[in-house]
Amino acid sequence: MSKVGVVLSGCGFRDGAEIQEAVLTLYFLERAGIEFRCYAPDQSQSSVVNHLTGEPTDEQRNVLVESARIARGEIDALERADMAELDALVLPGGFGAALNLSDFSSRGANATVQPDLARLVVDAANARKPIVAICISPAVLAVALSQAGLTTTLTIGNDADTAAAITQSGSTHETCPVDGVVVDEVRRIVSTPAYMLGPGPKRVGAGIEAAVAKLADWLAT
Amino acid sequence: MSKVGVVLSGCGFRDGAEIQEAVLTLYFLERAGIEFRCYAPDQSQSSVVNHLTGEPTDEQRNVLVESARIARGEIDALERADMAELDALVLPGGFGAALNLSDFSSRGANATVQPDLARLVVDAANARKPIVAICISPAVLAVALSQAGLTTTLTIGNDADTAAAITQSGSTHETCPVDGVVVDEVRRIVSTPAYMLGPGPKRVGAGIEAAVAKLADWLAT
Repeated sequence: MSKVGVVLSGCGFRDGAEIQEAVLTLYFLERAGIEFRCYAPDQSQSSVVNHLTGEPTDEQRNVLVESARIARGEIDALERADMAELDALVLPGGFGAALNLSDFSSRGANATVQPDLARLVVDAANARKPIVAICISPAVLAVALSQAGLTTTLTIGNDADTAAAITQSGSTHETCPVDGVVVDEVRRIVSTPAYMLGPGPKRVGAGIEAAVAKLADWLAT
Repeated sequence: MSKVGVVLSGCGFRDGAEIQEAVLTLYFLERAGIEFRCYAPDQSQSSVVNHLTGEPTDEQRNVLVESARIARGEIDALERADMAELDALVLPGGFGAALNLSDFSSRGANATVQPDLARLVVDAANARKPIVAICISPAVLAVALSQAGLTTTLTIGNDADTAAAITQSGSTHETCPVDGVVVDEVRRIVSTPAYMLGPGPKRVGAGIEAAVAKLADWLAT
């Protein structure tokens, strides 16, 4: 049975992992017969946002501890993840990817990527192990690859500024509907817009289901 | 299109709503063509638990604010929910149901149920509007019904102590596998064990999918 690493970035789309994307990812992975292990960086969140009002708060929360809420405690620190033990890498979205797994939200194509994530992305690419990137994560992925001199083709839906940052990273952006995927067969990278487009769990789930189906095809060959 | 109320109890199974159950519930509702609105009580959580270690912390969090993480901010205070405007009530699980929506975790069949939830449950039962109860929520539902002199038949899986509390409430407990449901056709109540049994999103999702299918049948007649 294949085993993939799922990288979470907190618990809540405004300051961490997009919860619905993360859960639907785990659901479709298990339904496809793919074993998963969750990881998140053991570090303070870049911010904590009240998800009722959208306003920042003065709380301090830890990315790994909050991610454990989604994973029901079955999660390891990202520094312990090793692509030698994993068959693929899966990156759900949420602003946490652009706030905690990188500083993409403020620096775009010039972002610094969290070092463990950068290592995993480059190790996966060099071993031609598949990567699934969801929502805003494809932009972070493009930056991480560019810093190793690598490029790919992917989607974040149709947001012009984010697409421009991907282009600036040397990768190619393709527009895509929420229930679709963009596939780089050479590099084995599949991406889907999810909540970069919304509007709800049904169509977001359809895109994630399609991305996981592509992953399952690669893992079977 | 039918519209149902989904009652959340926080964000994380140890002190709030079980996240995977809540998301899979929203996913299957939308996939079945059922519109939903999320609600949670605007009150302090009974406790805050570190989901990495399982240990309680000294933090203070609000049930509505944390539930908003799952619902992406699209949520109302439970006191605003009115069964006259809803076609059914859906109760995902997590210890939050037994900690924040009631004190079932400490008082069992003698629990006090959060007053807005108690009101909604009795209004739904009296109007014969369907109720979906997941994981530990069927136990809270049995207590809420008993305080209005009502009983039903439901499941929380096979946990002996919780089943005994349901029996003490006057309702009937039936054991059930995680991917199954127990149906009370007279009262239109469907329940599924979810993470009372586990083991993961695939089989928990199968039970929730079956419960939502039963709900859809009732809403169509």
